[in-house]
Amino acid sequence: GMKVERLKRRFDEMAQIGATERGGVHRLALSDLDREARDLWTHWSEEAGFKVRVDDFGNMFARLEGNFPEKKPIVLGSHLDSVPKGGKFDGTLGVLVGFEIIESLQEKAEDLSCPLEVAVFTNEEGARFPTPMLGSGAITGVFSKQHVYDMQDDDGKRFEDELKRIGYQGEEKNRLKEVEAFIELHIEQGPLLEAREKPVGVVKGIQGLSWHRVQFIGESDHAGTTPLEHRKDPLLSAVKAISRINNWIHRLEDETLVTFGKFDTLPGSINVIPSEAVFSLDIRHPDHSVLLDRVETVKHLIREVALEDDTQSLCEDLSFMPPVAFDESLIDTLRESCRANEIDYLEMFSGAGHDAMYIDRLGKTVMIFTPSQAGKSHCEEEETDWEDIEKALRVMHDNVARLALT
Amino acid sequence: GMKVERLKRRFDEMAQIGATERGGVHRLALSDLDREARDLWTHWSEEAGFKVRVDDFGNMFARLEGNFPEKKPIVLGSHLDSVPKGGKFDGTLGVLVGFEIIESLQEKAEDLSCPLEVAVFTNEEGARFPTPMLGSGAITGVFSKQHVYDMQDDDGKRFEDELKRIGYQGEEKNRLKEVEAFIELHIEQGPLLEAREKPVGVVKGIQGLSWHRVQFIGESDHAGTTPLEHRKDPLLSAVKAISRINNWIHRLEDETLVTFGKFDTLPGSINVIPSEAVFSLDIRHPDHSVLLDRVETVKHLIREVALEDDTQSLCEDLSFMPPVAFDESLIDTLRESCRANEIDYLEMFSGAGHDAMYIDRLGKTVMIFTPSQAGKSHCEEEETDWEDIEKALRVMHDNVARLALT
Ligand SMILES: NC(=O)NCCC(=O)O
Ligand SMILES: NC(=O)NCCC(=O)O
Repeated sequence: GMKVERLKRRFDEMAQIGATERGGVHRLALSDLDREARDLWTHWSEEAGFKVRVDDFGNMFARLEGNFPEKKPIVLGSHLDSVPKGGKFDGTLGVLVGFEIIESLQEKAEDLSCPLEVAVFTNEEGARFPTPMLGSGAITGVFSKQHVYDMQDDDGKRFEDELKRIGYQGEEKNRLKEVEAFIELHIEQGPLLEAREKPVGVVKGIQGLSWHRVQFIGESDHAGTTPLEHRKDPLLSAVKAISRINNWIHRLEDETLVTFGKFDTLPGSINVIPSEAVFSLDIRHPDHSVLLDRVETVKHLIREVALEDDTQSLCEDLSFMPPVAFDESLIDTLRESCRANEIDYLEMFSGAGHDAMYIDRLGKTVMIFTPSQAGKSHCEEEETDWEDIEKALRVMHDNVARLALT
Repeated sequence: GMKVERLKRRFDEMAQIGATERGGVHRLALSDLDREARDLWTHWSEEAGFKVRVDDFGNMFARLEGNFPEKKPIVLGSHLDSVPKGGKFDGTLGVLVGFEIIESLQEKAEDLSCPLEVAVFTNEEGARFPTPMLGSGAITGVFSKQHVYDMQDDDGKRFEDELKRIGYQGEEKNRLKEVEAFIELHIEQGPLLEAREKPVGVVKGIQGLSWHRVQFIGESDHAGTTPLEHRKDPLLSAVKAISRINNWIHRLEDETLVTFGKFDTLPGSINVIPSEAVFSLDIRHPDHSVLLDRVETVKHLIREVALEDDTQSLCEDLSFMPPVAFDESLIDTLRESCRANEIDYLEMFSGAGHDAMYIDRLGKTVMIFTPSQAGKSHCEEEETDWEDIEKALRVMHDNVARLALT
């Protein structure tokens, strides 16, 4: 049967790999610590008698075969990598809950209508190799193999070299292909479940996002000798553009989110008017056409400022991920599992991207969220109550049983 | 006699040391290239028969003794270091014009009423060791010896170690003490002389400057999951503060200059709301009390924004250099030299700091400016017409003759 103590014990053991002083984890993709985490997970899987396979991007799958190996599998799982000084729940919880469930269903292997798998995807965070959900995107054709293999971290180390170095370059034939269902449990990473006092989120989809690099180019000059009216200051253009975009977004009063995470100047000297100001732009909305519309308006506002200031502007597109709507029947089954277990839930969209966003291309997909204390994530303070985790585990177990047990 | 061809030949030879592809120089203080420049200058000085001494900060002095060695010297000069990919005129021109003048007055050594010296000050730019006019500030008591010796460049290399490494750590007794007059020729680095079509600037003083590091602290959070109303975004506070300061400065319509040269965010990730935004502030005004007033208002505006946004702000004072008014009698003599040579001049203030700002503490001081094409400086495009340089050389020569020849 299902054992929350076993889950908790494994969770604590995994949280020691890359543990930080203040209770988080620092476990970047394809690092030595990532290898340690992978080794531990592989050891547990083999110990429990599951077949483990590794694909050519280092994605790993533990499989409970059952009597219908030819059927498409139901897959659970998430990722084991973290952002720098991140939290111990992000990704890991989904992997270990999935593992607990297939382990607990092992005794019913004879009754399974299809194989069950637990997946661990590579470089979900995009923190080391700078594209999130790289492993799941690679096997679903979003990124080419060469592109992924040639990606470099900040020290110029290649993805392929690091994958080989830690011993997790598997074979192409081991990739996940079609799935009967992919069910990803993840922490919410936002404040909604806590605010509404719901232990579980039934996730109906993931909002879309558009990433850009905005550059203003002006004329570098001496801070002490250049009269204000002689200046073409790209920093002031960037500041004006950010103000204007931000004011516009606030006036909209809808779900649009815009974030400016990076801002930098060149040459970056205290007494030199910059020649360039560069900032990043993260725009999100749950509706595809609204998102495209928001991107257009933002680009328009940027060009407008450059024209007014006689500076030059450039808005480079970095990534676009359209919103994903999860499978209606899976959402329905999840609602039933909540109700059957008398567990209160919130129907919601995910603000953050997850591997489910890409794995959705291989079959029906849904996600379950657990609450994040104070909405905190991607930091050492990230926390989720074990009471809530236990509820999510029950819902997930019920859900898989409904889908897989004949 | 005075030979502009000799000056030009030396100038071209010096410009080869650290020459960049696009006609500038890259010659950071206490680098191997700085050593080469110093060696060449020392070679010329000794070849011409001048005694060279080096002080404990690497400031160098070539001396034409004359018959009154006990008298306070008249000192000419500037610096040989450059900013990264800077211009070949900045500093070097003042050193080599000074050198040409004492060399040309060598034949009249018997008639000198006091010694003449040419000075080369260390790390004027503040580009490598991050305090401008470090060598001249050190010998005038602005910075302590230990502070200067312990200063580090971006690679953590200490000033003292680098000074020793290039072989230019001289003795404390060699410092410049009291001066009869210090006359620094320098390029304007601004657009005024060109705009007014004047070949020479008679510089009446240097405006004051105040440097700060402004920090806004907010709360880092996920860009996709944090509703706008839950955010404490320090970047938006920084942007608001810069807008507000800039609008206020423009409304003033006076001489106040404000520049934001650096801007950075932490952690600096595209999908993370920053925890911190940090920018630099350079505020200038020719009047001491007005400058202090401007600094107070800017600090007030910063606090106001932090209060409105519920973020935290910090405005750290980095440097304050009060305005300097040059000596009235030296300004007068300079005017006379211009008129006697029928050379048109503009009376002006310097927008940029120069070694004269500190050497003023050792005696009477004045500066002469030559025009900068398009006002450009601290870049490879920096340019000054040799026709203008020749005029400045004549004025400078006449000036020194008036002051030093009995
Ligand atoms: N879950 C998560 O942080 N994924 C990274 C992509 C995103 O910024 O949404
Ligand atoms: N001349 C010059 O650029 N000095 C550095 C100090 C300043 O920024 O004014």
